[in-house]
Amino acid sequence: MTSDNFPSSDVLISEVGPRDGLQSVKATMPTADKCRWIDALVAAGVREIEVASFVPPSLLPQMADAAEVVRHALRHSGITVMALVPNRRGAENALQAGVHKLTMPVSASTAHSLANVRKTPQEMVEEVRAIARLRDELAPGVKLEAGISTAFGCTLQGEVAEDDVIRLAALCIEAGADESGLSDTVGYANPAQVRRLFRRLRAEIGAHAGAAHMHNTRGLGLANCLAAWDEGVRTFDSSLGGLGGCPYAPGASGNVVTEDLVFMFEAMGVRTGLDLERLFAARAPLVAGLPGEPVYGMTPEAGLPKGFAQTR
Amino acid sequence: MTSDNFPSSDVLISEVGPRDGLQSVKATMPTADKCRWIDALVAAGVREIEVASFVPPSLLPQMADAAEVVRHALRHSGITVMALVPNRRGAENALQAGVHKLTMPVSASTAHSLANVRKTPQEMVEEVRAIARLRDELAPGVKLEAGISTAFGCTLQGEVAEDDVIRLAALCIEAGADESGLSDTVGYANPAQVRRLFRRLRAEIGAHAGAAHMHNTRGLGLANCLAAWDEGVRTFDSSLGGLGGCPYAPGASGNVVTEDLVFMFEAMGVRTGLDLERLFAARAPLVAGLPGEPVYGMTPEAGLPKGFAQTR
Repeated sequence: MTSDNFPSSDVLISEVGPRDGLQSVKATMPTADKCRWIDALVAAGVREIEVASFVPPSLLPQMADAAEVVRHALRHSGITVMALVPNRRGAENALQAGVHKLTMPVSASTAHSLANVRKTPQEMVEEVRAIARLRDELAPGVKLEAGISTAFGCTLQGEVAEDDVIRLAALCIEAGADESGLSDTVGYANPAQVRRLFRRLRAEIGAHAGAAHMHNTRGLGLANCLAAWDEGVRTFDSSLGGLGGCPYAPGASGNVVTEDLVFMFEAMGVRTGLDLERLFAARAPLVAGLPGEPVYGMTPEAGLPKGFAQTR
Repeated sequence: MTSDNFPSSDVLISEVGPRDGLQSVKATMPTADKCRWIDALVAAGVREIEVASFVPPSLLPQMADAAEVVRHALRHSGITVMALVPNRRGAENALQAGVHKLTMPVSASTAHSLANVRKTPQEMVEEVRAIARLRDELAPGVKLEAGISTAFGCTLQGEVAEDDVIRLAALCIEAGADESGLSDTVGYANPAQVRRLFRRLRAEIGAHAGAAHMHNTRGLGLANCLAAWDEGVRTFDSSLGGLGGCPYAPGASGNVVTEDLVFMFEAMGVRTGLDLERLFAARAPLVAGLPGEPVYGMTPEAGLPKGFAQTR
């Protein structure tokens, strides 16, 4: 549908809005609107999109059309179509739909893990192992990412030991995941902690260290992304309009806003491969598909600086 | 009025709300409310407050009670009472009122400088020289700061040459200012630029390098403060509730929110000397004195993380 000619970039912006964002709002975006939104994201240069979550529709009716949305996204060549899967059943369905990448939520907080997937962190490592095996059998080219949730603290448990986080990330790689990323599910992270944990993660699992998934709950989202960038992180999850949260983590709100994150990097001369004006335009199908839902982003509201030119 | 026993700190948070914030809103806060707000800020541990601007009341009626507000603030011992002065007349009045520190807006953009103070940057350097002389005669203990406005770009002029910024900062020191700080008046700054400019500033004027004054117009306020901290900046201007802007710079909005800035530093283990809960409480007199005015801050809205304890 689109060309393979994506511009080269220094960082990968992994858009999680269609999954993380849409599962956090009460309304269900119609399938056609989801598809239009994904098309607009691809037109803006987004190369990796978490398009859906393969969970029982009884739990998250917003994701009932996951397979259909994946099939639509696959019509775009050159992008990585990713889906969240909490268990084997979900992984089977996602692989059957043809995704390029699976992401699994593996929480470092036992309380959050039980609330989110009804399994302990150790049981989730075994789930990673089973899904990696399934992937090897059914679709060996598909990538498997473990997103270590509540890596910087948990609204249920409070502090989460850094040793637990790093150990869990390493266990997921040992179990067959290709990458372990760190998620600030509830917006507790601070830049010093982000630097410390990503440094330890890289020391422990090297190139298997994955994305920084930051929330803006306390306004520190971009500062935390900057801290992760300083430590060598090159993949950043974010959500157009800052949509998102976690339905099973009380107080979790607002992913990092893609528009502001891309502006920060582009202004720094760090190439994202995304076109800011087209990214702002991709807010229209989001707003149209979720009438009345608040959409955030300070750069789209303020506009680009006078004379601002993106590096290419 | 309060004790001298302020806790030790790693950074100085310079609260600019009563000046920068109040001059940017249409309503005029009653003097008694300003005083209550200042009292609450001091109770939270704020040690430096820009309490007023000494300008003709015909231009900024919100600041007509500047001398009275200064006199009230001076009843607190142990804090630095600062006022903005655009010219000699203002400096005379501020010195007569008894301020501890004067701050002058010296814009690196000629267009903004003319709009703001009807003088070119070079003419403002001469004004700095005259005010420094006045200070030497009348109150030699008083500090004089030059805040280099539009140091990171200008809504009128667009790009501002970094050489111009650094040269202007150095000229102000040569003219008798004690410190030159850098202000992102219109929210154009990015972390790479902040690092580059503060590094150059420090190389050029050493310990005379002053505060980072960041705006959150495009959401990068805290990331820019983090970048400045990394370069050794230890004084940060911010505004309770994010109030502020510049009436003579179109599109300028929102100072960095003091509450979020303090949370970021305290979470990192960087001591601000401020008590977060008391800082949140200092929003009440602000809101009471400016009914209907929007007040920002994500940390006060989200609350502190579970189990969060400030380092002391």
